[in-house]
Amino acid sequence: MTVPLRAAALEVDIRIGDVEGNLERIRTALERGAASGAQLIVLPELATSGYLFDDVAEAAQAALSRDDPRLDVLRGALPPGVVAVLGYLELDGDRLYNSAMVLTGEAIIGQYRKAHLWDRESELFEVGDSAGAVFDTPVGRLGVAICYDNEFPEVPRALALAGADVLALPVNWPLVPRPDGEHAPEVIQAMGSARSSRLPTVIADRIGSERGVAWTGGTTVIDGDGWIAAVSDDGVALADLTLTPGDKALSPRNDLFGDRRPDLY
Amino acid sequence: MTVPLRAAALEVDIRIGDVEGNLERIRTALERGAASGAQLIVLPELATSGYLFDDVAEAAQAALSRDDPRLDVLRGALPPGVVAVLGYLELDGDRLYNSAMVLTGEAIIGQYRKAHLWDRESELFEVGDSAGAVFDTPVGRLGVAICYDNEFPEVPRALALAGADVLALPVNWPLVPRPDGEHAPEVIQAMGSARSSRLPTVIADRIGSERGVAWTGGTTVIDGDGWIAAVSDDGVALADLTLTPGDKALSPRNDLFGDRRPDLY
Repeated sequence: MTVPLRAAALEVDIRIGDVEGNLERIRTALERGAASGAQLIVLPELATSGYLFDDVAEAAQAALSRDDPRLDVLRGALPPGVVAVLGYLELDGDRLYNSAMVLTGEAIIGQYRKAHLWDRESELFEVGDSAGAVFDTPVGRLGVAICYDNEFPEVPRALALAGADVLALPVNWPLVPRPDGEHAPEVIQAMGSARSSRLPTVIADRIGSERGVAWTGGTTVIDGDGWIAAVSDDGVALADLTLTPGDKALSPRNDLFGDRRPDLY
Repeated sequence: MTVPLRAAALEVDIRIGDVEGNLERIRTALERGAASGAQLIVLPELATSGYLFDDVAEAAQAALSRDDPRLDVLRGALPPGVVAVLGYLELDGDRLYNSAMVLTGEAIIGQYRKAHLWDRESELFEVGDSAGAVFDTPVGRLGVAICYDNEFPEVPRALALAGADVLALPVNWPLVPRPDGEHAPEVIQAMGSARSSRLPTVIADRIGSERGVAWTGGTTVIDGDGWIAAVSDDGVALADLTLTPGDKALSPRNDLFGDRRPDLY
């Protein structure tokens, strides 16, 4: 069985600390994604807040609780059956998390808190207690991880083994050097992990720069064979993916999961 | 601490069933690799035998036992301190294995039997009982896996966690379609796994074709950042790698291994 899925990863003009403005720009982006016919829409990590906060006090000013009604407003941009994944800065009591929310027009389906923190994030955020998460959604079993999470090969593999049919990956990738003609290194890692587990991967990255850090602009949709199905074109990477729920066969003789040797690792 | 390592992956004109001829061409290739100053020399999977056997009987005709004196002859091509990794078709009693041997001029350091069998291999070969292996050698802790093994992300990760400083990967990659401008998919997977674990990876592939199967010609040396350090040029991919034994730090705040969450996967 195969299931078609139109997926969109969206660039958004995210401004640090401007929660109200970011929410409005996110709402506009969600409407644009929905208008393109996308059934799955992915937005960047910490899209509501920006990233490079000086300290916890400044970050806390840009945080939202899970049940903040301003997040509900975003759901109004989503037609029935459309699923969005949004990175946001979560406040829970006096703790901050780098989180992602899975939304439909009807409900908040789930939440995930980043488990692998990059650089100064560990001074701002608590770590999550799962390494990615899988949610049942109207578009199938959806894996969610955030940025550096996916550079640990255990994460996309475990999500696929747990039944994820597609992976939503909000990121904030600082630009790093790479040889001419090569994809960003994080894209190469995602292409490899997508192919290893037949796990299409929808990546929404930042553009431009923030407080002196240039972003990679790596917004990309990767298909289940590990090839690039779309990169950002005028702010949207849009691709028609084919999901293959539960099917990891390569041929009658080989199967990406069936050939594993769990007795050995 | 960093350790320089000159590594060579070699193409060889391998002819199916021509064990004597293959051994002679392998010996010549080893001499050539040693003359280039390489301290680690990697040759393809099943280099002594070829790959596309019709049946077990034909494969058995091209098999060698571990202690076959014809393998000893190869060691004569290796100067002191040089390590070679050679794929060969191993006969043990009445069983056949797709194996790799780790050689120096002085000794056979170790052996590995492929744990993940591709396509018709399962009709010819028994499976090995470890998923890659790590050997202490004159050039450091050397991981060895064979071809399809490395497409399971568990394998290079486990070898790096077991202390491998560099991975030798003999392969026979059948050519598969890929988009214009992309590396072979198996190279992309190896680039990703090399970067995830800072595991330089030395890949020796076949060239040409055999019994109607075209080979990828993917002989490549990948550095510890996951970038391509060398591809085959006139039969040799030669690169000066930098090994970083035990050091997986990315910065004072991040570490490829220290940031893992083994409590979660």
